[in-house]
Amino acid sequence: MVTIQCERWVHTLEMPRPSLQDNTADAERLLGALERRLGVKGVDIDLATAARLPALLRENDYRVRGIVFGAGNHWELVAVTADDDRPVLGLAVDLGTTRIVLSLVDLASGQILGEDSLDNPQLSVGPDILTRIHFSDAADGLAQLQRMVVEGLNPRVEALCRAHAASPDHIFLMSLAGNTAMTHLFLGLNPRWMIREPYIPVINRPGRLKARDLGLALHPDARLYVFPNIGSYFGGDLIAGILHSGLHRRKGTAILVDVGTNAEVVLGNRDWLMACAGAAGPALEGGVSKIGTMACPGAIDRVRIDPATRQFDLQTIDDQPPVGICGSGVIDLAAQLFRAGMLDIRGRIVPEACAGRLVDGPHGPALEITPPPAGDEREGLAIGQAEFDSLIRSKAAMYTILETITGAVGITPDTLDTFFVAGTFGAYIDPESAITIGMLPDLPRERYQPLGNSSLEGAKKILTDPSLLPQVDAIRDRITYMELNVNQDFMNRFSAAKFLPHTNPERFPSVMARHEARRA
Amino acid sequence: MVTIQCERWVHTLEMPRPSLQDNTADAERLLGALERRLGVKGVDIDLATAARLPALLRENDYRVRGIVFGAGNHWELVAVTADDDRPVLGLAVDLGTTRIVLSLVDLASGQILGEDSLDNPQLSVGPDILTRIHFSDAADGLAQLQRMVVEGLNPRVEALCRAHAASPDHIFLMSLAGNTAMTHLFLGLNPRWMIREPYIPVINRPGRLKARDLGLALHPDARLYVFPNIGSYFGGDLIAGILHSGLHRRKGTAILVDVGTNAEVVLGNRDWLMACAGAAGPALEGGVSKIGTMACPGAIDRVRIDPATRQFDLQTIDDQPPVGICGSGVIDLAAQLFRAGMLDIRGRIVPEACAGRLVDGPHGPALEITPPPAGDEREGLAIGQAEFDSLIRSKAAMYTILETITGAVGITPDTLDTFFVAGTFGAYIDPESAITIGMLPDLPRERYQPLGNSSLEGAKKILTDPSLLPQVDAIRDRITYMELNVNQDFMNRFSAAKFLPHTNPERFPSVMARHEARRA
Repeated sequence: MVTIQCERWVHTLEMPRPSLQDNTADAERLLGALERRLGVKGVDIDLATAARLPALLRENDYRVRGIVFGAGNHWELVAVTADDDRPVLGLAVDLGTTRIVLSLVDLASGQILGEDSLDNPQLSVGPDILTRIHFSDAADGLAQLQRMVVEGLNPRVEALCRAHAASPDHIFLMSLAGNTAMTHLFLGLNPRWMIREPYIPVINRPGRLKARDLGLALHPDARLYVFPNIGSYFGGDLIAGILHSGLHRRKGTAILVDVGTNAEVVLGNRDWLMACAGAAGPALEGGVSKIGTMACPGAIDRVRIDPATRQFDLQTIDDQPPVGICGSGVIDLAAQLFRAGMLDIRGRIVPEACAGRLVDGPHGPALEITPPPAGDEREGLAIGQAEFDSLIRSKAAMYTILETITGAVGITPDTLDTFFVAGTFGAYIDPESAITIGMLPDLPRERYQPLGNSSLEGAKKILTDPSLLPQVDAIRDRITYMELNVNQDFMNRFSAAKFLPHTNPERFPSVMARHEARRA
Repeated sequence: MVTIQCERWVHTLEMPRPSLQDNTADAERLLGALERRLGVKGVDIDLATAARLPALLRENDYRVRGIVFGAGNHWELVAVTADDDRPVLGLAVDLGTTRIVLSLVDLASGQILGEDSLDNPQLSVGPDILTRIHFSDAADGLAQLQRMVVEGLNPRVEALCRAHAASPDHIFLMSLAGNTAMTHLFLGLNPRWMIREPYIPVINRPGRLKARDLGLALHPDARLYVFPNIGSYFGGDLIAGILHSGLHRRKGTAILVDVGTNAEVVLGNRDWLMACAGAAGPALEGGVSKIGTMACPGAIDRVRIDPATRQFDLQTIDDQPPVGICGSGVIDLAAQLFRAGMLDIRGRIVPEACAGRLVDGPHGPALEITPPPAGDEREGLAIGQAEFDSLIRSKAAMYTILETITGAVGITPDTLDTFFVAGTFGAYIDPESAITIGMLPDLPRERYQPLGNSSLEGAKKILTDPSLLPQVDAIRDRITYMELNVNQDFMNRFSAAKFLPHTNPERFPSVMARHEARRA
């Protein structure tokens, strides 16, 4: 393993001036200086970059800045600039199905300059991945989807740069993490075989590309690094998340869970990594549940119910009037209802405990969360039994996946020293509530660690720490991906997990202890 | 060192069809099959090539041809095609200052399909390198020179393909060898610092490029390999020549000489390589000597003089009426004149031996080679003393360079087991004559081996034998380039070499033995 001696992707280089005794060509003079600095062999240079060197080196008296990118024995000189005070920037992008988040990074200092985000412009085609993949099959559909994201990104990148006294022309490196489908659409790669058995992506390691080839308006020589995927259902966003968590470098075994429409789980330590993904979250984000919504201003994200008075205390994102309830709010709600005796052990609404809140829903009685605003035609928010059933299935699926993957490596969840929860879900979820309904295992609460936008954080880290790039492929190659085999055994576990918190209360001692305490 | 298991750059690959148990992406499925075939790790793929894979693999039931290029751990998939009978071709180019020679190669069989050649279109700017380099400094000059060659090449490549029932779209690899200046102009790299002390090229290893980036009308994904150079005065044509000669793999020490306006010399064996270059040939090609001309139809390339009758027997290229005398003809002429006693040991015309052939030249008496054609206004061909003096200086320079380089490594020329003579000069020169005038050392004649167009041959070999590519860089890196230090010692040797054959006749025993025999 080559020891990488560089702490940044940008290096100020001073070269010996050429002489009759040292008449190496301009390109090899610069590359040699770089190779000595980096402690590597074989840095590649573009012809166009080489063509600019004679004037650049002589005008700057052989002192310039080189921006590099690479790992192992595969390095490239991205660009060369005068050693002046113009910024040398990087752009990290989390390409989400719903939101795209950008982060502008100073490549020389490693400082994060600012962030911005935008809705994924492909939402206009459809909110879910499947709709977009079908759209990509139509004539020009793929190219349209590709352009949408690029044309959405370009002006936002420019605005973000302008806000920091820079221009997109100062961006030399871009890193991008997203799920496999979003990444394929962004790269103009046809994802049609990803959704047909046996679910084959076009590429696992898109690697390093030229940003301009995709229409990105950055520096003309800017490189784009796209995080690799494991398969159609385990994308670069997860790899970036693992990188960010450091799970792959820890001695103790930890788990990382990213819950969206799918639940993606990685279990492991510095010696091994095991991953799986499964449908888990229909109740946890918008689309299926009538009132389920994305985490946006006005979404209820926190619910407290006084067990004595059954009074509701709701908190919304940005304290806006309630417009719906997001995943973490649904879990909070179910946990609080269960603790207040308003949901029973099977997740059924207990009518006698819900007096005054029962309204007629489209499919039977429903529980009113917020009354209709006075003098407003909008409806109040109510959740029916069907929606609670959907949540129960989701939480049971999540728990079963966790049980299955830990069981597969012969450990129990209580041996995990850290439980990382990624994404918006991880940021808002109250582990106490998730444990109360038996969605997450009953671990000491301090072992739960929210990771934030781990996809973006991983993408940022690649731009600020060159030693991490080789780790990405190492993570990818070390992961054993476990196909979730939905067999009788899985279904038995799933059925047992469909109770609050579980048919086996010994698995949730802290939840049961509180129950006992309340009863006493 | 990785053992390369492939004999060609094109491979038919059959892959296992994807399944739930084997759901690697299309790109990695193909690259994995290639890596197993090649016995290497890490073959790169372009995004555009990856984008075409899903349809191509499925339409061809996972049996395709992959065209690769690379060495060591740097391999790339150039293109993928259906496994049908469309040709997969390569184009080798010797980019000479005067002539450009093309060779069309079948990459699958390694067969040479055909060759063609054209004048370097940059001749319209000037016959010599210096004029072109000065021209490249003018506005748009460099781009003009670059375009000239590409626009000259494209139609000839198309015609060559058509003659072999193919099209340029079937060409996936191109290799090009030329001197450093020609290579720079071809790549659009400014050569202005090559002719100014300390003589710095823009790049030593242009490496692998995309042919389309230079405007070459081949397959859109075709790669261009440009042979590396050692410096401004030792180019890729020489490296290709060494590769062709196999000098770098021989146990015995051999020498390779390429004589044009410059003499380039490589000395060595499988353990070491030493090279130098020096001005040697003004008398040997057109430009300086009034009657010296390039090797073209009508150029006198062979001269025999009966020592008894002093009757001339002239041979011209293609048996055309004489229009001049080329390098090999000049050497033949001088050797024959010397043996007939018409030139003395200092290379001076001996008037009493040249009776009937002495005419008035612009700078004194000259020796008439061919009389003016009867009834024609053209002049006859005559060579004056100044031109013989120029030849003597050239041959002395050549001999001194050989003496210097062999002396630098502590050997004498007679220990060389092979003496390779490259290029047109090597093809036409009579070693006997060159030895007679003391230009080349007095070795057994069978040790002299003409190499032909060794630059083109080297470029062809790269296309037919992948195991040679890593040897190119190995040759380049192993060469110790010796700056010819024109000091007093060099000048003393040079003065001694200005006699026919030399002031020290013991160095030319076979020449002296024949003299003695004639006198006896």
